[in-house]
Amino acid sequence: MAESGIIYQPLSNRELLCRWLSHVKLSRIIILVSVVLIIVPLVTHYYLSKVEADVPNGDVHRTRSKLSSLEAFEDFSTLRASDLKLRIEEMLRIKDSVSVELRELEAKRQRLQLEVTGFTQRIEELKQELARQQNDLERLKISVEQAQVAQREAAQRNTPDLAPPKQILPSQAPAVLSPISPSYATHCRMHNCFDHSRCSLVSGFPVYMYDPDRHSVLSPEWEVEGFVKTTLKQTLGYNPHFTSDPNSACLYLVLVGESLAARSFWFNTTSPGRKMVAPGPALLERLLHALPYWGGDGRNHVLLNLARSSAAGVSALGSPTSAVATGASDLFLGVDTGRAIIVQSTFLRSHFRPHFDLVAPPILGQPGGDVWQECPPMLPARRQLLLSFQGDYIQPAGVSRSTADIDSFIVEHLQGMAMGPTTDRFLFHFDCTLAVLGHETAPASKSNTRTPPSMGAGEWSLCGTESSRATILRESTFALIIAPHAELDVVSTTLLQTRLLEALKLGAVPVILGGDSVELPYSEVLAWRRAALFLPKARVTELHFFLRTVPDTDLVALRRQGRHLWERYCASVQATVDTLVAVLRDRLGIPPLPADEEPAPSVFNASFVPLKMDAIVPDAEPEESLGPLEPSYPSPKFKRNYTYFLSQGYEVWNDWGDPFRLYPQLPFDLILPSDAKFLGSGVGFRPIGRGAGGAGKEFCESLGGNNPREQFTIVMLTYEREQVLINSLSRLYGLPYLHKVVVVWNSPKPPLEDLRWPDIGVPVHVVKASRNSLNNRFLPYEAIETEAVLSVDDDAHLRHDEIMFGFRVWREQRDRVVGFPGRYHAWDLNHGGWLYNSNYSCELSMVLTGAAFFHKYYTYLYTYWLPQAVRDKVDEYMNCEDIAMNFLVSHITRKPPVKVTSRWTFRCPGCPVSLSEDDTHFQERHKCINFFTEVFGYMPLLNTQFRADSILFKTRIPHDKQKCFKFI
Amino acid sequence: MAESGIIYQPLSNRELLCRWLSHVKLSRIIILVSVVLIIVPLVTHYYLSKVEADVPNGDVHRTRSKLSSLEAFEDFSTLRASDLKLRIEEMLRIKDSVSVELRELEAKRQRLQLEVTGFTQRIEELKQELARQQNDLERLKISVEQAQVAQREAAQRNTPDLAPPKQILPSQAPAVLSPISPSYATHCRMHNCFDHSRCSLVSGFPVYMYDPDRHSVLSPEWEVEGFVKTTLKQTLGYNPHFTSDPNSACLYLVLVGESLAARSFWFNTTSPGRKMVAPGPALLERLLHALPYWGGDGRNHVLLNLARSSAAGVSALGSPTSAVATGASDLFLGVDTGRAIIVQSTFLRSHFRPHFDLVAPPILGQPGGDVWQECPPMLPARRQLLLSFQGDYIQPAGVSRSTADIDSFIVEHLQGMAMGPTTDRFLFHFDCTLAVLGHETAPASKSNTRTPPSMGAGEWSLCGTESSRATILRESTFALIIAPHAELDVVSTTLLQTRLLEALKLGAVPVILGGDSVELPYSEVLAWRRAALFLPKARVTELHFFLRTVPDTDLVALRRQGRHLWERYCASVQATVDTLVAVLRDRLGIPPLPADEEPAPSVFNASFVPLKMDAIVPDAEPEESLGPLEPSYPSPKFKRNYTYFLSQGYEVWNDWGDPFRLYPQLPFDLILPSDAKFLGSGVGFRPIGRGAGGAGKEFCESLGGNNPREQFTIVMLTYEREQVLINSLSRLYGLPYLHKVVVVWNSPKPPLEDLRWPDIGVPVHVVKASRNSLNNRFLPYEAIETEAVLSVDDDAHLRHDEIMFGFRVWREQRDRVVGFPGRYHAWDLNHGGWLYNSNYSCELSMVLTGAAFFHKYYTYLYTYWLPQAVRDKVDEYMNCEDIAMNFLVSHITRKPPVKVTSRWTFRCPGCPVSLSEDDTHFQERHKCINFFTEVFGYMPLLNTQFRADSILFKTRIPHDKQKCFKFI
Repeated sequence: MAESGIIYQPLSNRELLCRWLSHVKLSRIIILVSVVLIIVPLVTHYYLSKVEADVPNGDVHRTRSKLSSLEAFEDFSTLRASDLKLRIEEMLRIKDSVSVELRELEAKRQRLQLEVTGFTQRIEELKQELARQQNDLERLKISVEQAQVAQREAAQRNTPDLAPPKQILPSQAPAVLSPISPSYATHCRMHNCFDHSRCSLVSGFPVYMYDPDRHSVLSPEWEVEGFVKTTLKQTLGYNPHFTSDPNSACLYLVLVGESLAARSFWFNTTSPGRKMVAPGPALLERLLHALPYWGGDGRNHVLLNLARSSAAGVSALGSPTSAVATGASDLFLGVDTGRAIIVQSTFLRSHFRPHFDLVAPPILGQPGGDVWQECPPMLPARRQLLLSFQGDYIQPAGVSRSTADIDSFIVEHLQGMAMGPTTDRFLFHFDCTLAVLGHETAPASKSNTRTPPSMGAGEWSLCGTESSRATILRESTFALIIAPHAELDVVSTTLLQTRLLEALKLGAVPVILGGDSVELPYSEVLAWRRAALFLPKARVTELHFFLRTVPDTDLVALRRQGRHLWERYCASVQATVDTLVAVLRDRLGIPPLPADEEPAPSVFNASFVPLKMDAIVPDAEPEESLGPLEPSYPSPKFKRNYTYFLSQGYEVWNDWGDPFRLYPQLPFDLILPSDAKFLGSGVGFRPIGRGAGGAGKEFCESLGGNNPREQFTIVMLTYEREQVLINSLSRLYGLPYLHKVVVVWNSPKPPLEDLRWPDIGVPVHVVKASRNSLNNRFLPYEAIETEAVLSVDDDAHLRHDEIMFGFRVWREQRDRVVGFPGRYHAWDLNHGGWLYNSNYSCELSMVLTGAAFFHKYYTYLYTYWLPQAVRDKVDEYMNCEDIAMNFLVSHITRKPPVKVTSRWTFRCPGCPVSLSEDDTHFQERHKCINFFTEVFGYMPLLNTQFRADSILFKTRIPHDKQKCFKFI
Repeated sequence: MAESGIIYQPLSNRELLCRWLSHVKLSRIIILVSVVLIIVPLVTHYYLSKVEADVPNGDVHRTRSKLSSLEAFEDFSTLRASDLKLRIEEMLRIKDSVSVELRELEAKRQRLQLEVTGFTQRIEELKQELARQQNDLERLKISVEQAQVAQREAAQRNTPDLAPPKQILPSQAPAVLSPISPSYATHCRMHNCFDHSRCSLVSGFPVYMYDPDRHSVLSPEWEVEGFVKTTLKQTLGYNPHFTSDPNSACLYLVLVGESLAARSFWFNTTSPGRKMVAPGPALLERLLHALPYWGGDGRNHVLLNLARSSAAGVSALGSPTSAVATGASDLFLGVDTGRAIIVQSTFLRSHFRPHFDLVAPPILGQPGGDVWQECPPMLPARRQLLLSFQGDYIQPAGVSRSTADIDSFIVEHLQGMAMGPTTDRFLFHFDCTLAVLGHETAPASKSNTRTPPSMGAGEWSLCGTESSRATILRESTFALIIAPHAELDVVSTTLLQTRLLEALKLGAVPVILGGDSVELPYSEVLAWRRAALFLPKARVTELHFFLRTVPDTDLVALRRQGRHLWERYCASVQATVDTLVAVLRDRLGIPPLPADEEPAPSVFNASFVPLKMDAIVPDAEPEESLGPLEPSYPSPKFKRNYTYFLSQGYEVWNDWGDPFRLYPQLPFDLILPSDAKFLGSGVGFRPIGRGAGGAGKEFCESLGGNNPREQFTIVMLTYEREQVLINSLSRLYGLPYLHKVVVVWNSPKPPLEDLRWPDIGVPVHVVKASRNSLNNRFLPYEAIETEAVLSVDDDAHLRHDEIMFGFRVWREQRDRVVGFPGRYHAWDLNHGGWLYNSNYSCELSMVLTGAAFFHKYYTYLYTYWLPQAVRDKVDEYMNCEDIAMNFLVSHITRKPPVKVTSRWTFRCPGCPVSLSEDDTHFQERHKCINFFTEVFGYMPLLNTQFRADSILFKTRIPHDKQKCFKFI
């Protein structure tokens, strides 16, 4: 006992000894020891000698003999026996009593010691309890304060809460008014030809379509191709603005024709020598005016004349007579269309009414669905051919030779350029016969002397088949498009747009010569300058120089933007119809309809009350007041319905690519300047130290930042790991700013009825998933009422302070994934392609959604906006949903995610081995990352080399100051 | 000597002792010592006794008495004297020899010890040297590798290096062509009426202006107001595109008139009954055609008819006859302007040629200079009045009553709205007489029945004076603008634009009723939807609802954007002229001219060679290889001359507000997707681990990230602290990626000639400042050849690893200030307004430029773009330049700065007390922050709650793994 006591004496004593030793001069020690070694024996010797001398009777012999034990025994034996016995007994008695006494003492000692230990423990407990109570009190105080502020705000609030407004709809069909004169019609703009009274701002923009099978405008003479009829009806049905009630409609769509039909009709009726006013226009006019809701002047009617030139079958080896040439024909020439809006691909400038009529692309694609398969990868930036062009020039009949000169000049110049001393490769076919023979940049001396038929005259027809053209466009960095001859004075033509769409789809950046004189589809909302290059024809001499000045960054950006515009607005019939409706809606200033939310049915029957856990296991971690516990505060929604597409319409159309739906909030919502919160716009703001700033207590009391206060929702996917889930839930007790926990119950089996659920102070909503899918993690559940979503694995163990800090960082980076486990995409040095990598690294590109914040907006995009193939791959592997989310967010923002602090390493130790452990899992993730890259057409992930920590983390500060968090 | 030898023995020996001591059980030591202490005396005693016994003659008495010195003396005295003497002498001899021997031994020991110490030291030194050499070798290896990569790249590089191109200019005046027919002129677009041959892409866009004092178009009949003439000439002279050589010009500006003159002329000549074809047009036509470079058809001519309605003196109490009404007059009606482009504020729709003619705002402002003084603060968001309007409706004479109905309806509806049950306050004066009386929303039953004179008919005239209108606009959240009557069919009018500009200037968000039928200035490049609200007149019934839906965030954003557009493009004559030129230049696709760089003359004479320091003091800090030492690599520049305004033109015009100059690089330059660098666009990229990622060595070897490799420039301002400077410079030795150090020598005294400058491996360029100003810190010196600028105080002590990490973080956040010392702006709870705060805080809003990275672009903006008042304040206080830079960057980006790591706390201890210590310094900074807020109109700083750390900072990782940096 004693020995171990010495052994375990506190280290500090030893250290003291060492320090003392190391400070004393060794020489002195040696001297001291020597002195002691000399003096002690001498002194001992003196005293021993003296003792010998002082022995009673002075007998040296006896004294000396006493030292021998044998002699001593002899002395005892000389005592009397009885005396001896008595003495021994007495000694035994004494011994007994002493030992009893000792035992008692020992017992008493032990008792006391136990008591002391007990007391000490109790004091410790009390201290902890006190600290906890104080903490709770502190928290309660903050909470009360915050509640008071919120209450004051509620009282002061003057602005009414906005919600998606109730629809106000007309209830009658348009009244019949007297028709307008055709000359007035040429001045039609929205303000004088459109009836806004049917389209209140809160109407929701209902759109009615005349059934092409029922209405007379589509009589046999006006046969519209079956495909167009069917798909258009079908796709419009998917559009949320579609209404079948003509009395409440704002807009009336009339499917008038499709350019092939229109053209064949046109060519049948306009034989040489005949005037433009053919029977066609008269018939069309009669049919239009007979439409049941025409209302005399056709106001709010939209006449759709959608070209579909893939049906216009370009075939025929090099025979220019059969080439598509939908050129400068206009179905509505000579037709009194009243106040109706015309939508088509080909417009004469004299007949196009800007900001009223709409240039729409031809519908070349499939009805709907994924389109990424049609696109080649965006990289490498530079392809084999710098520039390519194939076409037959159709000499306009009525145009004199001299005005055609510019196109001849262009051809000559381009041929010279291709032949010139350059390493750049060009492919120019100015004659489709040569194109088929496959000569690269064939001399086409004949091409501009031949006289083609008059259809599409002044334009360049397409060569070959769609697939033969695709082969060349896939190899072309830039695709040349030559605008129709200026004398034709067209705004746009189907041919031009067909070339444009094919180039965009196949990643050849369109270069439009004469682009300053044409109008591209939806140009009132789309910024085509970001997807195509425009040059006046006169600048053909500078074309090569110009193309060489485009750096790779801009080249890839142009290609990416081109594909984006094509994919979102032109690729399918659905896209075209949705875009048409959206452009007209946008023009009227009416917001889109709210995006669909996913219903979140509870896994419990309405009557079933889940059992509650008796008491919450308090968090074993040291407590720290991290913020107030407030009452439930869902994020305000639909606050910017009428303004976001004004302030951010450009981004909505061109960057985010989703002008079709209204979202409750956006991660890109604007922020107020920091003085606003002190000058009248302070509602909801919780500035730190009321604006004075600070650390420690002041910091934890208020959210601060540039946005008003808010809360977050935890979404947790679980599958048959009930105890793991319950433990995770329990740990959330007392987490500030937590609004709700949404547990997605992926198992078909409902939870055990006797499972006890912890009461963590906020609602735990257990959603019954319709099927077991990892995509459920990112469904836009209606139960999620906050902008901030914290997605966590059911076995993830995040500390409260980590969550709080993560939340604060996310509030500053609302458009990004902000979270804890960092990963990255690495280039496979041996085989090319990408590898998923979870090693320690100083450069990251993903933050896994097993523990990350993101904006609810991305759950809509993940579910509705992302190509279906991505979600299918996630279901196929039961894996990779987190990678997909990172791809999505980086694709939209062109920013890397944000990794927060370093402590996140725990997973619950006792849990069954999670999916992520085995090798298959990794192999799948490699495959996913490459597959997603294929779907997106490029690798959207970006690198980041830093991590977010709290500002005073590991900083030495004075003792009287506090840090932001105690441990992180 | 011996003692000191012991004292300075290596610590390790002592530690060994201590370790031994602390490992041996103390009990054993005690036992050992006790045993020794017991045994030694006993043994001594035994031997001493034995000696006594062995004493010749064996007398106990004698032996015992020997212990007493007295007795011993007596005994000795009994010895024979000679024996004794001999014995003593012998003993002395022995003693002597022993002590000599001892001294020798001691000396030898000391010698050996010294030697040992020497060797140990030497070994230590060698070890350090070895480590350093290995480090250098490592670094050299990396450097060699990097150099090899760079060399390979140089060899493979196919794309030629671009530079701002050589101007290619025409050398002759335009040839005379036959004039075009007026009907052709109505179809003028850039492609058919503009001569691109005079404006090559590399021409630099030279603009010539006919001198208004010399050319006949400005004969006395056509007197242009003196102010316009003078200031226009003057301001165009400041425009970099201005040329005085008509033979090389691309554009010819003709100052035709100014609307007042035009109008008075107009009213003089058009008396009732007369036709439009008055003598005026004929004269004007004759004068135009006589211009020396008219070339027959006036191509490339721009006819400027700039309104200046402040001169059009609005006065007269409520008398509508004198109110401004420049309405629907058009100077060029009936004039054959050939192919010339017309620029004016008022256009009839029938005469406006979109994308050819230009709607320009009236020039109401001063010639140039700061304009912020004219604007009220942007906050609070909500002002007293929700909506205000003052005006007199001028009934158009020729228009029938029925078509005027919509404006009557508007008036009635608005009056009802103001009277209705709402807490919102309106101010409507539909009659200027009432406006003067100051009634709020006076009933104006007469206003729409009265018949005003025909000038400006169909429009609403302004009421009162500019200052009386300003008083009301300052109090208005929104300013109503009612577009001219639709029947007038105008595109835009001077009156409308005057209302618009006044509203923008005074922060009342314009709400344009009938805004769908008008065109605002420069609408081909400016996104007016972000600055004003547009409603069709039919929606006046929804106006109140609509205004109530605008949240504070959008409201402030609209106001801020409005002020931005006004300030940059409309506020002064200079702004108007520059914008006009820039819009036309942009339309032609010609890049602007490069921004001016500041010359950086050396402080040394050309002949003087500064002395070099002998050797570099190696950094006392532990060495760590942080990256390769490469040869000088300036950032490539002017790579996107022809593309950045295509991809980012929208941002250039609307967000960054500087389309007037071309910058070598932008912090907003696009990035390539991460696969590009492995698929053909890898030039310049240095992916970490060649793409495999990693930490430690791999990380330090390569810059990685999303941008190609680059270097940075250190800029250091210094003023008469030569030794401090030299020390700071010395510490930069061996810093990777450092391109150059630019020392700004602010003192008028040149450096001492005998000052020795350290050779730190990169050039140190000492710039002679023209005057002692802190603004010099942010001059765009031509000597700065990299995008990244690290600004450091001359006394700042940053570690190399901190700088490296800061550089990496900046590379990811190129548009922000990224640095070390964090500060924030705190709200003054007692007095309102802002306080500068440098306390420990968990929320920051500034990073001081005493140690921060920023993009060189911001030095241009700071020097040329920021209002002069800011730089003047910096000079006045000799303080606050760092605050100004933070304001600027946050204003442009709407993002907070980024604080990096925590170690930065050092300032050199021996240096003289820096400026920042005293209280005046702080007081000045408070004042600056409030003054700058006034200049910007709001507080641009934003808060941030996190700090950037390296990804593995303070992370526990396995022993075989390396971190990103050893210490940070």
